[in-house]
Amino acid sequence: MVAKTWANARDQLMRDPSVTNLNTGSCGPLPRPVFDRVTALRTRLASAPMDFLSRQLPPLLWTARERLAEYTGTRPHRLAFATNVTGAINLVASSVRLAPGAEILLTDQEYAPMRWCWERAARRQDAVVRTFRLPAQPADPAEVVEAAVAAMTPRTRLFFFSHVVSSTGLVLPAARLAEEARRRGVLTVVDGAQAPGFTGLDLDGLACDYYAGSGHKWLLAPTGVGFLHFGDDQADVLQPAQVSWGYHAPAGYAPDERTEFGSTPRLRNLECEGTRDLCPWLAVPAAIDFQAELGHERVRARMRELAAFTRERLSGWHGLEPVTPEHPELSGAMTAFALPPGTGPEVSRELWRRFRIEVPVTGSPDRPLLRVSTHFHNTETEVERLAEALKELSR
Amino acid sequence: MVAKTWANARDQLMRDPSVTNLNTGSCGPLPRPVFDRVTALRTRLASAPMDFLSRQLPPLLWTARERLAEYTGTRPHRLAFATNVTGAINLVASSVRLAPGAEILLTDQEYAPMRWCWERAARRQDAVVRTFRLPAQPADPAEVVEAAVAAMTPRTRLFFFSHVVSSTGLVLPAARLAEEARRRGVLTVVDGAQAPGFTGLDLDGLACDYYAGSGHKWLLAPTGVGFLHFGDDQADVLQPAQVSWGYHAPAGYAPDERTEFGSTPRLRNLECEGTRDLCPWLAVPAAIDFQAELGHERVRARMRELAAFTRERLSGWHGLEPVTPEHPELSGAMTAFALPPGTGPEVSRELWRRFRIEVPVTGSPDRPLLRVSTHFHNTETEVERLAEALKELSR
Repeated sequence: MVAKTWANARDQLMRDPSVTNLNTGSCGPLPRPVFDRVTALRTRLASAPMDFLSRQLPPLLWTARERLAEYTGTRPHRLAFATNVTGAINLVASSVRLAPGAEILLTDQEYAPMRWCWERAARRQDAVVRTFRLPAQPADPAEVVEAAVAAMTPRTRLFFFSHVVSSTGLVLPAARLAEEARRRGVLTVVDGAQAPGFTGLDLDGLACDYYAGSGHKWLLAPTGVGFLHFGDDQADVLQPAQVSWGYHAPAGYAPDERTEFGSTPRLRNLECEGTRDLCPWLAVPAAIDFQAELGHERVRARMRELAAFTRERLSGWHGLEPVTPEHPELSGAMTAFALPPGTGPEVSRELWRRFRIEVPVTGSPDRPLLRVSTHFHNTETEVERLAEALKELSR
Repeated sequence: MVAKTWANARDQLMRDPSVTNLNTGSCGPLPRPVFDRVTALRTRLASAPMDFLSRQLPPLLWTARERLAEYTGTRPHRLAFATNVTGAINLVASSVRLAPGAEILLTDQEYAPMRWCWERAARRQDAVVRTFRLPAQPADPAEVVEAAVAAMTPRTRLFFFSHVVSSTGLVLPAARLAEEARRRGVLTVVDGAQAPGFTGLDLDGLACDYYAGSGHKWLLAPTGVGFLHFGDDQADVLQPAQVSWGYHAPAGYAPDERTEFGSTPRLRNLECEGTRDLCPWLAVPAAIDFQAELGHERVRARMRELAAFTRERLSGWHGLEPVTPEHPELSGAMTAFALPPGTGPEVSRELWRRFRIEVPVTGSPDRPLLRVSTHFHNTETEVERLAEALKELSR
């Protein structure tokens, strides 16, 4: 019965049947209803563009914002849509003003472009970026918190970390990290690229100042969905990346008042970037609906079940060593394994070339990791296929 | 025979049959083959995301760049894709460095958000924005050139103008304006939002430093297609709006060398903004093919024929006065009319509400204009319908 549910759900995904897709952590496939919804919206955009953009879109945009806000545990007025986390974090990094000499603190496991983004922001205002070492395989969330707290100095003004570490699947204790930072007067910016759909979100319950998320991974929303949540104290700090129609507020509206554009003056100021295709944002309710029907908790339990199966099946298999902690608060739907010495990205290339298995090699050149994503649409059979393929490759 | 061609071409467009769409100047409807192409690409993205993004996309991106470069008269190495002109101009405005006190010169007919964009850039580096008055209805291109030259002072460092003025359809003599500016050591930045498909482009033949264009209007490409052409001298000036994977060049490549990503290190630096949907860019060849089959010159001749019909039919009609010059070098496919005193944006709203005719009111509050776009897919019957509706409204 349960197996049937997951098989049915899997059947509703658009999948190339020749591909074994164990890489939702990079980009997820779309449920057919989500693709159909975004395509129907795009058909309207293509057929009567200005009627769609100026009259049909605004109420749909507000509805999408409300749904996403409810799903992530916040209010629509504090949720700006973005294309992805890269865009959202760049927006924060170009808005936040730091005193010369201020320190931006990062873990040593951040996504490389986001580290570069903070390095550019630091150069532009004579601040500095410093990284600290995350415990390699913490046994407990407290270990992570201790390491972060120990790394904060009186010069630390901003703390940037990933809610889920992209290379290893390690889940950081975001709530406690944000609390510790706030207690020290340190701004917190969270990279939640992997989080929506991977873990439950309660953004208003987090003491962070900025939280960015992407929808094209675990939420299975169309590519082009991201968001930036910002705290009340930060609302006046953000400056739009682009000057467009939202730059000057329409007369007579308060900054957080809903307008005829499906936004507030504040949100439109940040979101409006000329004429572009916002249909992915409008299709967010369809993506949330799809997993809500399966049950968000059940989906996450299934991910966890598949992750446990993956860990068990591949640990020690032809030299693979798991690096993702087993602690349930520190792990979820991605399981990473250190590759045997002397192997690296070619493993991923060969898995694709010879077996059409999509699984990336992450980590660093001196410590390459095989990262296995297991969403509800994956199966034990796919993990077995990966195991067999790795055996073949090791010959 | 000719009429049959245009009727057939019109039949290939996705059109809401209940709508009279005389507003390609805001956003064009899509030819069915273009929509089918972009949807097929998106199906691949949805079904096998990482195979599409990492393996299938790069060669398609280079092909699209080559086609667009050929179509616009330049080389792929100097053509960065963008989402639209707003994004491209913002990129230039945040990259160009001006000395304090430098003057940014604009015509008084620029698109409001682009004026605001230059105002922000000026504030950020102690420069100033100055506008000069374009001749209201020049009889000859030389009149425009004279007005621009007279407005340039020794402090003028940058000249920004629209190739086709959005509110009136006036075509500016871009080549001569750029030459005059270059002769004076003034950088030229051109807003070509309306130009691709509206007029022939020979970007390498223009003495401008930056030229931005949009594909979602007259080119009938999907929403999300724009470009920025930059001169050789400016290549090292541009800074990416966002730090993403392209921020650091891959080892071993020259800045203008084609890489495995469907770009050059320089272009990827500007274009890469995390994981997003680039399918509109990849569908550009389909859009160019569609109009190439009709014949670019024939399409423009048909636009002109319909514009002449519109001018003739509506001039003096219930108080409408044409403001777009008749000179063939100063006009093309958009014809604007001053509305009778005491009327304004409500005309557009009523045309939609009562007749489902899409035609915008542009211009300024004290001089509202009715702007009629006539692409090849429009018909004399549609213009007649507008005339009859205006007659009704004037009752």
